[in-house]
Amino acid sequence: MTEAIAAANAAWILAAFAAVSLMVPGLAMFYGGMVSIKNTLNMAMMTFGAFAVVGVLWIIFGYSAVLGDSLGGIGLLGDPLEFFGSSQLLTAPAEPALPPALVSGFQMLFACITVALISGAVADRMKFGAWMLFAGVWATLVYFPVAHWVFAFDSADGSVVGGWIANNLKAIDFAGGTAVHVNAGIAALALVLVLGKRSVFPNAPRPHNLPLTVLGAGILFFGWFGFNGGSALAAGNSASVVILNTVAAAAAGICAWLLVEKFREGRSTSLGAASGLIAALVGITPACGAVAPIGALAIGAICGAVCCFAVSLKYRFGVDDSLDVVGIHLVGGILGTVLIGLLADPDAPNAAAGLFYGGGVDVLWRQTVAVLAVFAYTFVVTLLIATVIGKTMGLRVTEEHELEGLDTATHGESAYIMETVVIASKVTTPEEAVEAAETITASAARAGVAE
Amino acid sequence: MTEAIAAANAAWILAAFAAVSLMVPGLAMFYGGMVSIKNTLNMAMMTFGAFAVVGVLWIIFGYSAVLGDSLGGIGLLGDPLEFFGSSQLLTAPAEPALPPALVSGFQMLFACITVALISGAVADRMKFGAWMLFAGVWATLVYFPVAHWVFAFDSADGSVVGGWIANNLKAIDFAGGTAVHVNAGIAALALVLVLGKRSVFPNAPRPHNLPLTVLGAGILFFGWFGFNGGSALAAGNSASVVILNTVAAAAAGICAWLLVEKFREGRSTSLGAASGLIAALVGITPACGAVAPIGALAIGAICGAVCCFAVSLKYRFGVDDSLDVVGIHLVGGILGTVLIGLLADPDAPNAAAGLFYGGGVDVLWRQTVAVLAVFAYTFVVTLLIATVIGKTMGLRVTEEHELEGLDTATHGESAYIMETVVIASKVTTPEEAVEAAETITASAARAGVAE
Amino acid sequence: MTEAIAAANAAWILAAFAAVSLMVPGLAMFYGGMVSIKNTLNMAMMTFGAFAVVGVLWIIFGYSAVLGDSLGGIGLLGDPLEFFGSSQLLTAPAEPALPPALVSGFQMLFACITVALISGAVADRMKFGAWMLFAGVWATLVYFPVAHWVFAFDSADGSVVGGWIANNLKAIDFAGGTAVHVNAGIAALALVLVLGKRSVFPNAPRPHNLPLTVLGAGILFFGWFGFNGGSALAAGNSASVVILNTVAAAAAGICAWLLVEKFREGRSTSLGAASGLIAALVGITPACGAVAPIGALAIGAICGAVCCFAVSLKYRFGVDDSLDVVGIHLVGGILGTVLIGLLADPDAPNAAAGLFYGGGVDVLWRQTVAVLAVFAYTFVVTLLIATVIGKTMGLRVTEEHELEGLDTATHGESAYIMETVVIASKVTTPEEAVEAAETITASAARAGVAE
Repeated sequence: MTEAIAAANAAWILAAFAAVSLMVPGLAMFYGGMVSIKNTLNMAMMTFGAFAVVGVLWIIFGYSAVLGDSLGGIGLLGDPLEFFGSSQLLTAPAEPALPPALVSGFQMLFACITVALISGAVADRMKFGAWMLFAGVWATLVYFPVAHWVFAFDSADGSVVGGWIANNLKAIDFAGGTAVHVNAGIAALALVLVLGKRSVFPNAPRPHNLPLTVLGAGILFFGWFGFNGGSALAAGNSASVVILNTVAAAAAGICAWLLVEKFREGRSTSLGAASGLIAALVGITPACGAVAPIGALAIGAICGAVCCFAVSLKYRFGVDDSLDVVGIHLVGGILGTVLIGLLADPDAPNAAAGLFYGGGVDVLWRQTVAVLAVFAYTFVVTLLIATVIGKTMGLRVTEEHELEGLDTATHGESAYIMETVVIASKVTTPEEAVEAAETITASAARAGVAE
Repeated sequence: MTEAIAAANAAWILAAFAAVSLMVPGLAMFYGGMVSIKNTLNMAMMTFGAFAVVGVLWIIFGYSAVLGDSLGGIGLLGDPLEFFGSSQLLTAPAEPALPPALVSGFQMLFACITVALISGAVADRMKFGAWMLFAGVWATLVYFPVAHWVFAFDSADGSVVGGWIANNLKAIDFAGGTAVHVNAGIAALALVLVLGKRSVFPNAPRPHNLPLTVLGAGILFFGWFGFNGGSALAAGNSASVVILNTVAAAAAGICAWLLVEKFREGRSTSLGAASGLIAALVGITPACGAVAPIGALAIGAICGAVCCFAVSLKYRFGVDDSLDVVGIHLVGGILGTVLIGLLADPDAPNAAAGLFYGGGVDVLWRQTVAVLAVFAYTFVVTLLIATVIGKTMGLRVTEEHELEGLDTATHGESAYIMETVVIASKVTTPEEAVEAAETITASAARAGVAE
Repeated sequence: MTEAIAAANAAWILAAFAAVSLMVPGLAMFYGGMVSIKNTLNMAMMTFGAFAVVGVLWIIFGYSAVLGDSLGGIGLLGDPLEFFGSSQLLTAPAEPALPPALVSGFQMLFACITVALISGAVADRMKFGAWMLFAGVWATLVYFPVAHWVFAFDSADGSVVGGWIANNLKAIDFAGGTAVHVNAGIAALALVLVLGKRSVFPNAPRPHNLPLTVLGAGILFFGWFGFNGGSALAAGNSASVVILNTVAAAAAGICAWLLVEKFREGRSTSLGAASGLIAALVGITPACGAVAPIGALAIGAICGAVCCFAVSLKYRFGVDDSLDVVGIHLVGGILGTVLIGLLADPDAPNAAAGLFYGGGVDVLWRQTVAVLAVFAYTFVVTLLIATVIGKTMGLRVTEEHELEGLDTATHGESAYIMETVVIASKVTTPEEAVEAAETITASAARAGVAE
């Protein structure tokens, strides 16, 4: 690689890194709009809190544990002491290449966002302190090893050994179908099983601010350009194909979810548009470098349609995955990872052939094993972490605090203070007016009114 | 072009492509904040829906119809079968150049956003299904041909024939004054003429959430860096000049609109700041590569001032262009395209001389012809499309649904559910208190209260 | 530098420039959410207004005053006539380098944002016209000279003379600790001293929309990638280290603020998370090229913790710095600039050694002098500007307008019009219900209700 090409690659990855950073407020708004008004700040703080804790750990030993030389050369965990403190990342590479500080920063945000994704499942009832502890412990014991398996490639000269999924199993995961989405989704399931349902479940409150959720989804869409496109680690044809596939899947995912809604319930919703968008983006994440645009449309449509059904399963199984982390990230992540086995086009950047492109079942079983490995490891270790935190500091707030809402109970804040509301309207019937006045009164009473 | 320069260009266009993607939620918020609270989700869904439908069509045949070899070599439409399905875009170009997948993705968003812009004119009364159908048909019959005329340049060796405005008329349209803004603006007018006014017109509801509109305008501003700067298709001096001009025009547009408001009405508004910003950005879109920064200030100021007057014309003509798509995109698009004929500076990237720079009227008439051609074609075809949809599936919701608002009537959702509002304030007079209580009661009554 | 490397650098700076532009709506939302509901649009307009006025001045003579050849070669101010009107920026540089139009645009936004930052201190009581005038005059008399001191480097061949802090004092300020944050912070203090307190001070209204503030903080975080990373003016190792340090500091800043809150008050808040994030980003701005990641963690944590204390000082000193511009930008800016003297790592891009890295006090005193110079100059000149505007057109709105709120009084707009609110809730006690009804009535009375 020439110095100039290395600079061009750095230019794109710097921009992609920046784009991914906007996923932090994007996710905070996406989740924050979907809960009731009394828990919206708590949702936002779980995202920002996960970024803060995991970000600090990443600088200290996380980068090293993910991208350091594999301990014992067995592909399970990078050496956490190799780059301890990250000062080794200051110097430019000897040969033209991506600066290690850039690789570190870009991968840092993957860790932060994966942890933050889990928080959607535990909305409205988890202690903030327990969440912050969980974030740090889970990143250390689950994300860092799994990311090493998937994202650490052996160096070309063999002097640095990477993770077993990337190098031995050789499963295809362009930007984190297993390490990010299956990982967060199965962790969400395990955590919720220990944490338990909200007291009101299955009568979950409806989203209190859907424009915020739609905005958050749109910001996540933007961030995904950096997430997937930056994972090409170069500015060129691969990144271009990857992003075209990402956008194609996104469009198809919205169409599919809206159509399923329309046929099932006679209407399509803005929450459905946002959900279809995210489900498709999850599904294309591992596959964006492996398929043709027409395959990307298929993956987007399949994820949009299947996840639209999957999110209602939580009621059947009685699992209170509040904001559908399992239904979207686990299901979408599995679909996207496994569909590579069918739809991989040898002309795409990953240069692999799926079953439908004459490649037999070779890719399919590698993808399946990768999913199963992450599924099993993460489920067990997350159960253990959640159980230990539950038995010691406790995972749940009191029932009084849950009823009051975490914004005031835990953080001492209210999302909105609407002293001044301009109102202009017409009365329809006197009875309705009286009823409405009573309801407003009741509502304000419940809110506590005084600060 | 060397491989390294091609990589640098790809790095910038990848980033620009990402920036443009944020215009999707940006537009949804800009429009969503401007309507009443009972139609905000519907507005957002028209933007996301346009993205979804047009995005899927783009992958299947849109790219090919816009940038494929001109059918019959006559510059009216690209061959929709040449790149049918887009699988041909997987491979890197033989000689160093922008990857075709990147060109396709970047241009895809132009198509999606142009269609979404139209939705501002039909707020509060159009069937969602009719909108989705209109979006797909209009993209196919209007946007794809017009974009071919304007954006498809002949290949250097003459083997690929492009559109007639770009190659025969040689009008200057850097980033879509005609193909995007005049196109969307005149289509909005035609669609509204068929659709009819809202039942409350001219008593339009005021914007229900101006912070959302201001945020949306700011996000669009960011996206425009990618829209205009990416249209240089290279990282270098052209893109730099283009963006400097874009920002200069934006600043001048805000100043001009606020000053006109101040002189006309004694105050300047946040809606004015947002509108002046967008009007100026529309005006500089075709001109950003043709003028000097001082010319950009002039175009921004002229568009800000003129559009501030233009948006009130709808009341005089009785045309219910709800969110001023005609007043801003059509008027601003025409101004920007035609002012190139006066202000083009030969030192700017387009290297053309306008009337004020000693170039005579040569540029001016080419610009005028381009505007007239798009104006006439789009107006007629859009009238036809709207009429056919209107006669078959119908364009409008029922009057009951219009009064109820489309969020609940069509989508079964409410934008906000404010169960918990903290209130703290002082009474001024008892009479005001009583009156206020009555008004709140009436308002709540009208809202239906129960979910 | 080769042409290809220049193109790669341009690719990154174009993207960074775009990222910084999103700070305009980001700051408008960050500030707009923090004030009461009756002043939120006014806050947003002060940001957009500052962008508009300063942007126009920048094109006319600001770029020239900052980056033109130093008048008299003494490093105090660039020649405002050298690039008057900016038409000279159209042509590409003779040797491969960043296009001057790109340098101008990127630096323009620094000027705009620095001015906009000041507006947080004067919330709820400053005349909008006086603010717009102040913005233009302050940019001309304060920002342009100070930015020349700090950001104008002598040309390599000595033919162009830059500013005295950059070239004579040789203080380290990577992206504007002195020119941006100390500058805005001390100007805010001077302006508030002339303007006076709000009538309700110290009973400041609480933030009316914290999700908006958190969103704004997150958008600013994204913009900071461009602000700091773009200041490397090249795509490569420096920009990569700079951004890694920026993100590291951000994570540590949130942790520190939340911990201090938790220990002092028993809870941590979303406003604290947003404030800790911004305080850390302010602190790392001058230092991002001078320290190792572990030093960045230290600077972030110190700024988060110290600013958490500093923001309460305004009550002790009776200075109504409404949104803590002094407590965060002045204090954070000083801390970050001076801590370079202790923490500078010779392996970092600035290649300087601080006291803790064996460099003695050499760096420390240069940093201190730079801070003191900006502090003194800006404080005195801002006092003068504010006094003159105050004596002539007047700085403050009337007390009636202050009570009414500037959104309706000055701009004739209301942020939200919530005609339709869906309410669903339970009553707790009858007494609370009655009390709540009275409070709502009172609130609505005060709001004026009628439009």
